[in-house]
Parts: sequence; C-alpha cells; structure tokens
Amino acid sequence: MGKGRIEAFSDGVIAIIITIMVLELKVPHHADIEGLLPLLPVFISYALSFVYVGIYWNNHHHMFHAVKSVNGAALWANLFFLFWLSLVPFVTSWMGENHFATWPVVCYGVVLIMCAITYTILARVLIRHHGERSLLARALGGDYKGKISLGIYATAVGVSFFYAWIGFALYVVVACIWFIPDRRIENKIGHEEGPIGG
Amino acid sequence: MGKGRIEAFSDGVIAIIITIMVLELKVPHHADIEGLLPLLPVFISYALSFVYVGIYWNNHHHMFHAVKSVNGAALWANLFFLFWLSLVPFVTSWMGENHFATWPVVCYGVVLIMCAITYTILARVLIRHHGERSLLARALGGDYKGKISLGIYATAVGVSFFYAWIGFALYVVVACIWFIPDRRIENKIGHEEGPIGG
Amino acid sequence: MGKGRIEAFSDGVIAIIITIMVLELKVPHHADIEGLLPLLPVFISYALSFVYVGIYWNNHHHMFHAVKSVNGAALWANLFFLFWLSLVPFVTSWMGENHFATWPVVCYGVVLIMCAITYTILARVLIRHHGERSLLARALGGDYKGKISLGIYATAVGVSFFYAWIGFALYVVVACIWFIPDRRIENKIGHEEGPIGG
Amino acid sequence: MGKGRIEAFSDGVIAIIITIMVLELKVPHHADIEGLLPLLPVFISYALSFVYVGIYWNNHHHMFHAVKSVNGAALWANLFFLFWLSLVPFVTSWMGENHFATWPVVCYGVVLIMCAITYTILARVLIRHHGERSLLARALGGDYKGKISLGIYATAVGVSFFYAWIGFALYVVVACIWFIPDRRIENKIGHEEGPIGG
Repeated sequence: MGKGRIEAFSDGVIAIIITIMVLELKVPHHADIEGLLPLLPVFISYALSFVYVGIYWNNHHHMFHAVKSVNGAALWANLFFLFWLSLVPFVTSWMGENHFATWPVVCYGVVLIMCAITYTILARVLIRHHGERSLLARALGGDYKGKISLGIYATAVGVSFFYAWIGFALYVVVACIWFIPDRRIENKIGHEEGPIGG
Repeated sequence: MGKGRIEAFSDGVIAIIITIMVLELKVPHHADIEGLLPLLPVFISYALSFVYVGIYWNNHHHMFHAVKSVNGAALWANLFFLFWLSLVPFVTSWMGENHFATWPVVCYGVVLIMCAITYTILARVLIRHHGERSLLARALGGDYKGKISLGIYATAVGVSFFYAWIGFALYVVVACIWFIPDRRIENKIGHEEGPIGG
Repeated sequence: MGKGRIEAFSDGVIAIIITIMVLELKVPHHADIEGLLPLLPVFISYALSFVYVGIYWNNHHHMFHAVKSVNGAALWANLFFLFWLSLVPFVTSWMGENHFATWPVVCYGVVLIMCAITYTILARVLIRHHGERSLLARALGGDYKGKISLGIYATAVGVSFFYAWIGFALYVVVACIWFIPDRRIENKIGHEEGPIGG
Repeated sequence: MGKGRIEAFSDGVIAIIITIMVLELKVPHHADIEGLLPLLPVFISYALSFVYVGIYWNNHHHMFHAVKSVNGAALWANLFFLFWLSLVPFVTSWMGENHFATWPVVCYGVVLIMCAITYTILARVLIRHHGERSLLARALGGDYKGKISLGIYATAVGVSFFYAWIGFALYVVVACIWFIPDRRIENKIGHEEGPIGG
C-alpha cells in the first residue's frame, strides 16, 4: 500500500496539534502589558511543546522518507502514536497554567514517554515490514538518541516529585538533543552508493 | 474524475474530527493529581472515539485504495458520511461528561449507526460506479462485519435504556472487531493475479 | 504555476470551516434527552451550512478540475472567497442560537451573497486566465444557476425583515438547487472529443 | 529531500491559523443588529490578519515554487517561521478586543516583525542550500520590499506608543504593498530562457 495518504493524514493531525495549542493562550481582557505577564509560563510551555511536536514531525518526515510502503499494522501504530501526541496540548496548558507545579510536570513527562515509546513501536513495525537489512533499519541503527531520551524523561519524572523545575529543565535538554534532525537517515540515503557498515 | 482531492479533503476533515475531541478535555485549574480524576470518563470516551474515527479512516483509506475514480454521487455520499462522523465529538463529550448516563450512551450509538449506514451508502455508490464485478465489489463482498456491527449497535442502543454500561461495553466490542483493518481489500489486491472465487 | 497547492490549501481551509461549526453545538450539562431540544435550531442551521460548504467544496473541486494553471490574481480571488466562506460558522451559530430571528437570518443571507459573488469573481479570473474559448469558460457558460441563486438570496434577505422563516426556507431552496453537483463541467470534459456548441 | 511534505504541512498549519481566527468572533447572545457593533474592531483586525496570513501563504507558495529540495535546516527555519505566524491569532484578538489600544497594537507589530525576520531567515537558508546563482536567489534579489516592510513595522511600533491608530494604519499600508504577489519569482521563472541580469 502506498505511503502518500498516511503521510497526508499525519501531517494534518500534527498540524492541528501544533496549532490548537496556541488557543490556550487566553487573550487578556485588559490592554496593559502587565496583562501578558501571567501568560508567560503558558507561553514558555507552548514554545517547548511547539519544539517537541516539531521534532516529531521532522523525525516522522525523515522516517517515512526512507519508507517504501505501509501495511495495516503500520497504520495502527501510527494512529497509536498520534493519540499520545494529541494529549500534548492538554498537558502543555495544564503545566503552563499551574506554573510548572509537580503533578502537571510529571504528567507532561509521562505523555512524552508514551509518545517516545509509541514512536519507537511505529519504527519497529515499519522495520519489520521492510526487513532488518532495509535502508530504514540501517538508518535507525541502535537508536541511541531514543534510548537516552527515554532515560532522561524517566529521570525527569522522578526528580519532578522533589524539584519540578529540574524536571522541566531536563525536558528542555532532550529537546535540544533532538533539535538537530535525524541525520542518520539523510546520511544513509546520501551514502547509499558507498559501502555501509552500520 | 480523479480521487486525489476527495481523499485529501476527507483526510483533512477526519484529522480535524479526531483532534478537536481532545479540546473537550478541559484543563483542571488545580495542580493536584485528584484534579484529573473527574476527567477519567471523558478520557475513556475520548479514547474509544479516537479508535472509532481511526477505524473509519483506516477503512476509508482501504476502500479508496481500490477505487479508480469518483463521480458526483460519491462526492455527496462522502460528505453525508463526514457529516455524521463530525457529530462524534459532540456525543463523545456528552457521554463522557455525564459518566455514561442513559441518553448520552443511546445518542452515541445512534450516531455510530448513522456513520455505519452512510459509510455503507458510500461503499454502494462507489461499487455502482465501478461495476459489480470490480475489485472493490469483490473485496467488500457480503460485508458481514458491517452487518454484525449494525446488529450490535442496535442491541446496544436498546440495552442502554436499562443498563447504559452494557451498551457502552458493546461499543467497545464492535471497536475490537474492527480493530483489525479491512484485510479483504488488501488480500484481493494481493491475489489479483490468481483466481478469485469470492 | 501549478494548481496543486492552491487546491490543497483550499481543501484545508474548507475542511476546517466545515468541521469547526460542530464546536458550536455546546454539550448540554444534563444527561436528559430534553437537554438536546434547545440545540435543535443550532443543529438545523449547522446541517444547512454543512450542505452549503459542501456545495462550495464540490463546485470548487469541479472548477479546478477544468483548470490547468493559476496566476497571482487567482490566488487572491481564491483567498477573498475563502474569507467570506470563513464567516459562515459565525452567522450559522448566531442564526441557530437566536432561533432564526430577523437580523441573524438577514446576515446569513448577506454572507451567502458575498460567497456567491466572490466565487463568481474567482471563476471570472480563472476564465480570463484560460481564455474565453477554454474548457472552463464553455463549461460554466451563462452561469444561470449562479444568477438565479443570487436572485433568491436577495429576495430572501428582503423577505426576512418581515417573515424570517420564509427567508430561511429560501436558503434551503437554493441549497436544493445546487445539491446536484455542477454537471456542466463533468459533461464538457466527458464530451470533449465530440462537437461543442455551448 | 523532496519539498512535497513540507509544503503540505505548512499549508495545513497556515490553513488552521487563518481559520481559527474567526473563532474569536464571539457570537452575540442577542439577535439585534446592535449586537454586531462591538464586534466591528474584532472584525477589522480579523480582516487585516487574514490578508497578512494570506500574503505569507502566497509568498511561501511562490518561494517553494522556485525551490527544488529542502534540507534539515530548512525544515527548522520553516517551523520557526510558523511558530511566530501561529501567534498572529492571539495578538489579532487582543488588538481587536481592546479597540486598538497601545500595547496590543505594539505587540501585533512585534509579531509581524518576528514573522518577517523568520521568513527572511527561511529564504536565506533555502538560498544557501540552492546556491547564490540559483533561480531562487536571483528571484529574491535584494529583497527591497522585505526591508521596506521591516522599516515601516519598526516605525509603526514606535509611533504606536503615542498614536496607536497611526501604527495600525501603517500595518494596513504594508499589507497593501504586499497585496501584489511576489512577481519577481513568477517573472524569473517565465524569463528563464532569456538573459537574466538581476
């Protein structure tokens, strides 16, 4: 089955997720600049989530670039991933409105962990469909960045019970790690003609 | 007429339907984990509807995969189906906010029945356009799953007047039946070269 | 310039317009079936607007099917049309919430008139770009349906000041007229090989 | 990497941005025409922002028309631009609801400046990817319109502290300057066969 429509649907859902978050920036009813101050934590958590959803869109884009076709399992794995991604706007505004209090920061981390796990499941399903020797499998390799991210997420969730701001800072760290798009796939595709050891 | 734009439009509408449901998860104003408890029924009904809309997107995807072109009647049948699907977020949050009370569960079932009927109409219109001997017609065959689903929906609506939770459980059952994507079309396309008896 | 992206953008905007209207169906806070009764006028006006936006999407689809390329003027004419179409959800819910009172019905008609005028401008811009002897120009011909619709809209707006329900009924009449998609273009394309007198 | 999916994602995000702004036109609860009067400033700022987002979509469309492929940096530059564009609905409704008071008009200008700067960054990233002698680089040339716009924006922000309406009028002026789509690219593509001096 072609990959065109699963890409189009995912693009639509991710575009909506990334855009509706801004609706949580409630317009202040006063015209003073002081009216914007209470929005600052909401804005910060919006900016972080925008980067996270952007990272997922980028990696999704790169991954499907190396994909040739999809099967039914991949459709469901993709929907499962989109389900957890669709919860990001909820935890984003809960975290922002409560000024990075313990439980919202913990739940934000839990949603990020579920997104990471379901994204990995999607990658595994696609690799099983294309074969362990496929371009996709070689490009993703040991998925070190994914494993490190999961470790930091888990640490952040644990630390958040004591110092929620450290938890939040760790989410920013993971975003910085992923900010550089997944060059593994770009590189593999670029070097396809040469010898591949990975 | 090509099928590209009807697919793109349907993808857009279904992507919006599946994503705006999450807006009904109202952010609690307290930072306690107890604040999430009242959201649990809303979350459960959101998860069920996400699966339902996902099933419809999957089946829509599969059905149009076997479609070669569309006519004016198919455009309208598709819009008619999307109209009923667009009511899913409304009944989802009515059902969740009222903790699966009788009437919301009944109305949820009625909307599911209308989605199933209009989807069947869409399938019939497409089959009439392609001919009874087309790939699409052979792939859909007797549509047993569709008929069984309609029967369970009707039972669920009736039972809901007495035990609403059983009605809800039956909706979960139908979702499980459909969770496996419509392999009939995948199989037919795969075996196109061989003899077809079906 | 290719027409692909203007189609994709229009599909996106129209899909959002047709779907966000359902958000105006505010979920009742009680679980009784009586809670749905006050929503009936909102639901009726939603259904009418869904059909109208569906009609415009259908005709837009048909028109761009006969279009080969677009220029800068067409991009702006298209945006101008989408601007007025984006006001449909606003007048829809104003009309529904006020039970088809005079001014909301009048404004609904004014928005429909502006949609019809800007759609005609878009058609004219595309015809000027393709030439008066193009497939598109011959297919649209004298645009009788468009002119009749404008006449009925204007009548409906006038009548609404006295009997708002008659105005609303006239909007339903126009929707019925257009319900049959614009077969002129389908026919012209189908008969392209034969002689065209039109 | 192909440009198809970055175009589709941008189309989706821009379509949502341009459409959700209309949700800020809160439906009045009375049926009198006087109920619409307080909405007039919100409507005016909506119309201006619709034109601005439309201009950006048009220019984005033209720019990617001249683009052959994208790299990871372009994906991020595009997301960075979309982030600032996604803040337009927020400042639009803040400005409209406060009847063009000083700080909202200033912030509207700041968001426009950030959109202009990030759009320029996106253009630079794409030019660096395609080379200084590419069609894109020659088409954008010295980017006089972009520089003039930035100057007017900055003036408008400064003037707004004293006369907010003049600041708003200057935003309208810039919108008029850009209303004519970026013919530089259309022309360059059209004259590709002839000698290019620019």
